[in-house]
Amino acid sequence: MKRPKVVVIGGGTGTFTVLSGLKLYPLDLSAIVTMADDGGSTGVLRDELGVLPPGDVRQCLVALSKSPQFLRQLMNYRFVEGGLAGHSFGNLFLSALEKMTGSFDKAVEMAGEILQIEGRVIPSTLNRVELVAELGNGTIVHGQNKIHHAPLSGNLRRIYLEPKAKANPKALSAIKAADLISIGPGDYYGSLIPNLLVTGIAEAIQGSKAIKAYTCNLMTKAEHTANFTVTDYAETMESYLGGKFDYVIYNTKRPSPLALKRYAHEGERFVELGRELSGRKIIGADLVSKKMPKVAKGDPLAAQRTLIRHDANKLAKLIFGIVWQKAF
Amino acid sequence: MKRPKVVVIGGGTGTFTVLSGLKLYPLDLSAIVTMADDGGSTGVLRDELGVLPPGDVRQCLVALSKSPQFLRQLMNYRFVEGGLAGHSFGNLFLSALEKMTGSFDKAVEMAGEILQIEGRVIPSTLNRVELVAELGNGTIVHGQNKIHHAPLSGNLRRIYLEPKAKANPKALSAIKAADLISIGPGDYYGSLIPNLLVTGIAEAIQGSKAIKAYTCNLMTKAEHTANFTVTDYAETMESYLGGKFDYVIYNTKRPSPLALKRYAHEGERFVELGRELSGRKIIGADLVSKKMPKVAKGDPLAAQRTLIRHDANKLAKLIFGIVWQKAF
Repeated sequence: MKRPKVVVIGGGTGTFTVLSGLKLYPLDLSAIVTMADDGGSTGVLRDELGVLPPGDVRQCLVALSKSPQFLRQLMNYRFVEGGLAGHSFGNLFLSALEKMTGSFDKAVEMAGEILQIEGRVIPSTLNRVELVAELGNGTIVHGQNKIHHAPLSGNLRRIYLEPKAKANPKALSAIKAADLISIGPGDYYGSLIPNLLVTGIAEAIQGSKAIKAYTCNLMTKAEHTANFTVTDYAETMESYLGGKFDYVIYNTKRPSPLALKRYAHEGERFVELGRELSGRKIIGADLVSKKMPKVAKGDPLAAQRTLIRHDANKLAKLIFGIVWQKAF
Repeated sequence: MKRPKVVVIGGGTGTFTVLSGLKLYPLDLSAIVTMADDGGSTGVLRDELGVLPPGDVRQCLVALSKSPQFLRQLMNYRFVEGGLAGHSFGNLFLSALEKMTGSFDKAVEMAGEILQIEGRVIPSTLNRVELVAELGNGTIVHGQNKIHHAPLSGNLRRIYLEPKAKANPKALSAIKAADLISIGPGDYYGSLIPNLLVTGIAEAIQGSKAIKAYTCNLMTKAEHTANFTVTDYAETMESYLGGKFDYVIYNTKRPSPLALKRYAHEGERFVELGRELSGRKIIGADLVSKKMPKVAKGDPLAAQRTLIRHDANKLAKLIFGIVWQKAF
């Protein structure tokens, strides 16, 4: 029996969640990963070593790894003292492999071998790129890390990569061969859309026979997607994709008042369905995780890490159901 | 057929060479490794992270690793830029494992698993220690890195660990069970003798039924062993051991005039046999490597790394012959 081919496009925690869930199913998995990150440990490594950004790739490798628990923990271990403070060990691992081999592509492949991954992790581009946002007033914001805090909500004129990035041929092949392509959840302008800005990726998705599924975030982000409904999330993403999704998946289960209150403090709200979307299958379900995520001690990005999260199993079960139905 | 048990005691390049050679023979190998290093990448990690010294352990792990070539290369990869400059990746690997698990012993065990080592690597002590030298004029020199350049030759009153170090029980067990114990070649006061200064190690060697073999260095070291003959090397080591070696192995092949000239510039000379040693089997043989060692680009210790080296195969063949003869 041939395993259905699923391509997950993204980067960051949302993609980690989807992959962690999907890897338990009989699927042929590929993760296509954003290369626009320039913050934290990744940003320092880019600046100091001239490497490509390891952080998002690391998370996807860990998600797909069948290696012992301690090895996956090690990859996410962050140093908290001295000159190494803030660096995740896995980032150093990928950067050392890249410096040693002279190729990020080769480094990712070797890392996948050491971590015994199930499936493939594919950088969306192998070019060195910067994410750039042009605001309504003409202000230009350079770099994903700065854009993370920039007021894009209702104020974004254009977002693009500089210089133009050429798609990784492996990404295009995976997209072409896919039975299902899954985008989201995740940092909307920071992790998801940068993949669609790589020349050739959106076109390849449009040209693929695959089912296209979008999974909406659980909560809005004040600076980027304030007041977005599920419909806004899906339609805006479609504008970057240049076509419609077949499926839009969203969460119907309101998180606890305590959790919502904490988010409200940051101006972030529960994502409501919004007006009706025609021509796409809309699937609403309880997708919220009941587990509180552990935050690593000394993690400098702790405050940014999401507390209300998707349940990997619930979401994966739903996506698997869609592709399985189509495949057989 | 039971494999003869060989324990190699040391640290650094000399021990790497012996282990690399011996691992090709049907032996049950253990490396007991000095924990006195405080220079270079290891010193920075000790200072900043409060970890135990990873450098010597790393070299022994790599020597005994059956993992693919690129993984062993990665462990020895040194960063050359930015805040990571000078750090060997393998040192970061061991230190991250130690910080994550809270135990250096556990870290070495996990690293051995990941690197698929043949045999065991055993830190001689799990205590935090500093090597201290007292010179003839009463000057006290603290730390292996400073002692490396200190004028010990004919001027060393006492060398000791501070605080007193308790032997790792695993080291004592390995010594007790050994068929052959091999000491040297290697940094005499920096890597070899510190193992014998750990309380219990020298006594355990004396109490072991194992054959005790000492392999002499090829060249003197101006600051530490100026004018030492093979006899001086062996007898001085015996004074720390508190007993005689069964075998003293030394090299008879004079290196090329060009190589000797380069060493002469540093005040270092070919080690001659010297006056007769009774009561030990003395084995002289051509043990010099014909290969010039590669020095990693950007290695900050490049100038300290030995150019005239033992041939791993020649030395291992000789040691294997001794233990094999006894065992059967």
